[in-house]
Amino acid sequence: MTGVDRVVESELDEPATTPVGERSLLDVLLHPESLAIVGASDNPVSLGGRPLGLLAAAGYAGRVYPVNPTRATVQGRPAYPSVRELPEQVEVAMVMVKAKLVPAVLRDCAAAGVRVAIVLSSGFGEGTGHGAELRDEIAAIVPTTSMRILGPNCEGLASLPASAPLTFSPVLDAARTGQVVLPGKVAVLSHSGGLGFAVAQWGSRAGIGFNYLISTGNEGDLDVLELADRLLVETDTELAVLVLEGVAEPDRLAALARQARQLGKRLLVARLGRSDAGARGSLAHTRHDATSLDGLTALCATEGITQAGGERELIDVLQALDKVPTLGGRRVGILATSGGAGVWLADACRDAGLEVPELSPELQRRLAGFMPEYGSPVNPVDLTAQFIATGSFAPAIEALAGSGEVDAVVLATSLASSGRLEQDREALADLLRRDLPPLVVYTYTHPAESCVRILEGLGLAWYTSSTGVARGLAAVAPAPADLAGTRTRRPR
Amino acid sequence: MTGVDRVVESELDEPATTPVGERSLLDVLLHPESLAIVGASDNPVSLGGRPLGLLAAAGYAGRVYPVNPTRATVQGRPAYPSVRELPEQVEVAMVMVKAKLVPAVLRDCAAAGVRVAIVLSSGFGEGTGHGAELRDEIAAIVPTTSMRILGPNCEGLASLPASAPLTFSPVLDAARTGQVVLPGKVAVLSHSGGLGFAVAQWGSRAGIGFNYLISTGNEGDLDVLELADRLLVETDTELAVLVLEGVAEPDRLAALARQARQLGKRLLVARLGRSDAGARGSLAHTRHDATSLDGLTALCATEGITQAGGERELIDVLQALDKVPTLGGRRVGILATSGGAGVWLADACRDAGLEVPELSPELQRRLAGFMPEYGSPVNPVDLTAQFIATGSFAPAIEALAGSGEVDAVVLATSLASSGRLEQDREALADLLRRDLPPLVVYTYTHPAESCVRILEGLGLAWYTSSTGVARGLAAVAPAPADLAGTRTRRPR
Repeated sequence: MTGVDRVVESELDEPATTPVGERSLLDVLLHPESLAIVGASDNPVSLGGRPLGLLAAAGYAGRVYPVNPTRATVQGRPAYPSVRELPEQVEVAMVMVKAKLVPAVLRDCAAAGVRVAIVLSSGFGEGTGHGAELRDEIAAIVPTTSMRILGPNCEGLASLPASAPLTFSPVLDAARTGQVVLPGKVAVLSHSGGLGFAVAQWGSRAGIGFNYLISTGNEGDLDVLELADRLLVETDTELAVLVLEGVAEPDRLAALARQARQLGKRLLVARLGRSDAGARGSLAHTRHDATSLDGLTALCATEGITQAGGERELIDVLQALDKVPTLGGRRVGILATSGGAGVWLADACRDAGLEVPELSPELQRRLAGFMPEYGSPVNPVDLTAQFIATGSFAPAIEALAGSGEVDAVVLATSLASSGRLEQDREALADLLRRDLPPLVVYTYTHPAESCVRILEGLGLAWYTSSTGVARGLAAVAPAPADLAGTRTRRPR
Repeated sequence: MTGVDRVVESELDEPATTPVGERSLLDVLLHPESLAIVGASDNPVSLGGRPLGLLAAAGYAGRVYPVNPTRATVQGRPAYPSVRELPEQVEVAMVMVKAKLVPAVLRDCAAAGVRVAIVLSSGFGEGTGHGAELRDEIAAIVPTTSMRILGPNCEGLASLPASAPLTFSPVLDAARTGQVVLPGKVAVLSHSGGLGFAVAQWGSRAGIGFNYLISTGNEGDLDVLELADRLLVETDTELAVLVLEGVAEPDRLAALARQARQLGKRLLVARLGRSDAGARGSLAHTRHDATSLDGLTALCATEGITQAGGERELIDVLQALDKVPTLGGRRVGILATSGGAGVWLADACRDAGLEVPELSPELQRRLAGFMPEYGSPVNPVDLTAQFIATGSFAPAIEALAGSGEVDAVVLATSLASSGRLEQDREALADLLRRDLPPLVVYTYTHPAESCVRILEGLGLAWYTSSTGVARGLAAVAPAPADLAGTRTRRPR
């Protein structure tokens, strides 16, 4: 049974039909005012013990009730023997008990008025099939209650706006990882908790900000497609990343894509289980049938969904989708301080179906004024290594971006030295305020932290690989077919 | 004129013909006892001023003489008006003067007994062709002297064993970048200085160690192929990375590959300028004809050279070539703590032409003993998220690696939490001492520094992307053709 079916049946969770005075499903799920952790462990490093610490460290402002019938306290807090015996009716319950106990806990939760139960327990037919009867038992509970269920076999969720890590994911454990997930307007919805949270971690390292990270596991009730639809409609999410092991109804993915287009929002889909061994793994992992996605590439092409094949490609594309407006065409201008890096980027652009056009003689003459006489203005433009230590990039960027001859400009340089961008910060900020084709930065060395901070302060997409730049730009470029005969030059 | 031609003519630089008591070309180039910097600048951040500071910071033990006819001192050191007026006959001269002055400086160097001149100056026909007559003038000097020339238009070199950064590359500027190039047995030879040094930086971040980094620029005399051959023969270099914009004689690349095979050493080649725009850029950059490499892929297949298409692939493959012995076959066993990561890795292995075989029922039964009942032993093996915080990986690795059913084992896990590997360090070290198929680690989250240190202490290849793991393993796997009918199972 899918979430969409259930909405028709229960008529509870559609925003329009949420009873007056009652908070919507997403309000409750993403901003819970009260939370039970059923199966909370006294051991703070065990999976069942981690959420308490993560919530405290995040500064979660809601009320948290550990439920554990075998203890009077859990990690120093009073513990309750059952969800039925809490001092208040909680909105959300995290369920982290052994699989065989989950059905009874869910019945308790429903009886206690819990709005959403998040089942992080595993053992519902995954692996070699153990616990399939428990999966059936949960499936029988779902239609009997207005309570919604996330999971089972999920890794929970994290709501950054609510400072609510309802998960055991190490990615939310800044104290142990030394890094935080950045706030922003990208949501991640994933069958795989491990990969879903990892997307947020890698994305944050690339300066991309997130709001909601949701893992759905086996999808006994709520699924990625229903949640993505609601996130796009009801929240400030601008871009939803879907990491999928299978979909029961591909038509619903097409409907979601149309919804996103109507709202002017973006979708990025990554598929797991393309290979035989991968599909075998997906079935064992979350009971999803990976072959249900065999038509995904065709569907993405038809519906204008961006697709990513692996984790690096996903972050490369996300970087552009998050920060770069749709290009006016597929022509890329490359300004390099390493001729080699410019060449490699030109190759990568060709591989990604982008153009690196030779510039007009007039523009070449202008650009030649910004470089030593052994530089090259043809495109890739080689400003030469004279620029790696000092020299302003802004005049050449302005000339190239403002020429009408390219639809995006890539600055390919070394940002290995701290302080390298200081001198250009203001000039770049001025350029970015003007109506020019987008600028993207590619550093062919590992960037210094200070340079990264400036790039992110300017809101620029930045990359450390030529393949990444090309993939990112291709994701925000119009399809070649859309351009046939319609190219217009921007006025100088 | 190529280096090989010159050897025949001058008979000077072949190790066998180096006069008794005279150091070989490579000894001089990579371990110079005395060094002139012609055109050394008093401004420590200009290109001409940087080498003095880099040499001092590296602790270079040789004697360094700034040459600058306009100043009495350079950065506080006595300056000399000409190479001819130095207090001794120096072995190496770095030449960093304006292009038009270079021929005269080279004649001075030759007259003063300099063994190798490294010309970092640009302006010899690059870009729009300016200075082509100076290129011809240098070409006329080469056959008149036993002095060898590196460059022009190169970015110099770095010899880690000699603590000698003869370059202005920011990659060697640990004070400004905050990171060092790790020592090891990988040499990089590159037409592009920017990319060549960047390989060492990215490689060091991935735990790969280097000995010699050499940029050859326009190759007026010494070229990548001659230097690579000598490095493989005369030094402890185990692996040479060649970043090429073109080769005058592809046959010499084939000869180099045969030389490497005979020595049991490895070659990794990356090509720049595959696209029209890229080739245009290569010509402007170092005057190389990129189309001379159009047969490279076929040549690599014939000669057993590993090829990399972009910088990420280069580092992925380098990681494996540096640390993983040649596999006995193409079968990969995957042990994952995120089912999703295992699935994605299985997909990537299929894309790279590797196999992820379903394991025998007997082995599945053994592996099932190491995981919760909802884990999956089929391959990809899903140990489940129970293992992300605690639990030893070693018993499952041992069972899988020792089974004879796979040729390599990949541990796919999250190493985001510092301390995660401490408990397994000894057990892993014991496993690695045994005659088992190689182990490679893939962390699907950004790894904590402490985990990276343990992996590197163990000498393990490690990756942060499933695509990377698959590319790396494919680079050390036997070709499918070599395996036909010959697969042997290791004994249990």
